[in-house]
Amino acid sequence: MEESHGLLIVLSGPSGAGKGTLCSELLRQSPDLVYSVSATSRAPRPGELEGVHYYFRTREAFQGMLEQGELLEWAEFCGNYYGTPRFAVEQWLRAGKDVILEIEIQGALQVKKRFPQGVFIFIVPPSLDVLSERIHKRGTEPEEVIQKRLSTAVRELAYVSEYDYVVINDEVPLAVDKIKSILTAEKCHVKRKPFLFKGGS
Amino acid sequence: MEESHGLLIVLSGPSGAGKGTLCSELLRQSPDLVYSVSATSRAPRPGELEGVHYYFRTREAFQGMLEQGELLEWAEFCGNYYGTPRFAVEQWLRAGKDVILEIEIQGALQVKKRFPQGVFIFIVPPSLDVLSERIHKRGTEPEEVIQKRLSTAVRELAYVSEYDYVVINDEVPLAVDKIKSILTAEKCHVKRKPFLFKGGS
Repeated sequence: MEESHGLLIVLSGPSGAGKGTLCSELLRQSPDLVYSVSATSRAPRPGELEGVHYYFRTREAFQGMLEQGELLEWAEFCGNYYGTPRFAVEQWLRAGKDVILEIEIQGALQVKKRFPQGVFIFIVPPSLDVLSERIHKRGTEPEEVIQKRLSTAVRELAYVSEYDYVVINDEVPLAVDKIKSILTAEKCHVKRKPFLFKGGS
Repeated sequence: MEESHGLLIVLSGPSGAGKGTLCSELLRQSPDLVYSVSATSRAPRPGELEGVHYYFRTREAFQGMLEQGELLEWAEFCGNYYGTPRFAVEQWLRAGKDVILEIEIQGALQVKKRFPQGVFIFIVPPSLDVLSERIHKRGTEPEEVIQKRLSTAVRELAYVSEYDYVVINDEVPLAVDKIKSILTAEKCHVKRKPFLFKGGS
């Protein structure tokens, strides 16, 4: 990895951990950070915009991207495809920009195989009660789907060991500050400074 | 390592990097941080206080501590002994306090062998010119000693690879913020979170 490359930051964790909220707030506070827009085959929710929240694609178009190797990671959740287009991410990183992915756990593990030098942050709720509460509050799906999400979320907590960092999302401003500190620290890490006093800082 | 243990933070780097200034400023901003006072056989400089800046000991007393295994690390510089008393450091860490050591490179490498779970931060000057300027400005020693210090400092830059982080000390407030971010990030590191959702956060 060349020194001028940006960091690939992967925010992940179980459903209900609040990673979406943290990601939005982080982007608001860090205008230089680039959000990687995912592709999905699911229908847009009210207010979701093409190219901003997701690239909305048909199942067939999504499968085409998959076959062409155009996805950095992909997964199927509740009958829908989700994935990260590879090209834009790599271009931003080469341009020295930090890129943030907010993705599900299985996707994060795929990214880790391809980009082990990424920064993998696991977001967790402060307790299992809070997790259950948050998943219920979202309330856009029937109880059966909610229960399925909840049991998946509890099972997924075990994946924490695959990550570099864990941030407990008890209060959003504190959690955001922790993530910002992680990015600052990673940029100071010796493993990312191969050319000290040669190629600059 | 139990979860409630504090972090052992080792600030090190070549002479003239400004690690003393950073350490003082960090302690001023972080009242919970504990400074590990070193022992030395050198004579006090004007204004230096026993038990605050150093524990001043005779060569014989220092050698006694060495023989009793009471030092976490030690080194001889310019004919004087310097070392870190082990007992106080371990007691603070067990009490959950973060302890900071500001020590020379050879000492840091000894600490790393005994406390690999410590956070090893290498402080460097922004350039070799600045390094030379700072060593000259200190001006408490003859030119011959200064030249010896300078060539040692340049040689010592190669030890950066033994550390976890490198912080370039160009502006003190920025460098202090980076160190604080490193400590925050380390506390979020998965390797320090063995009991997530069991023993607490």
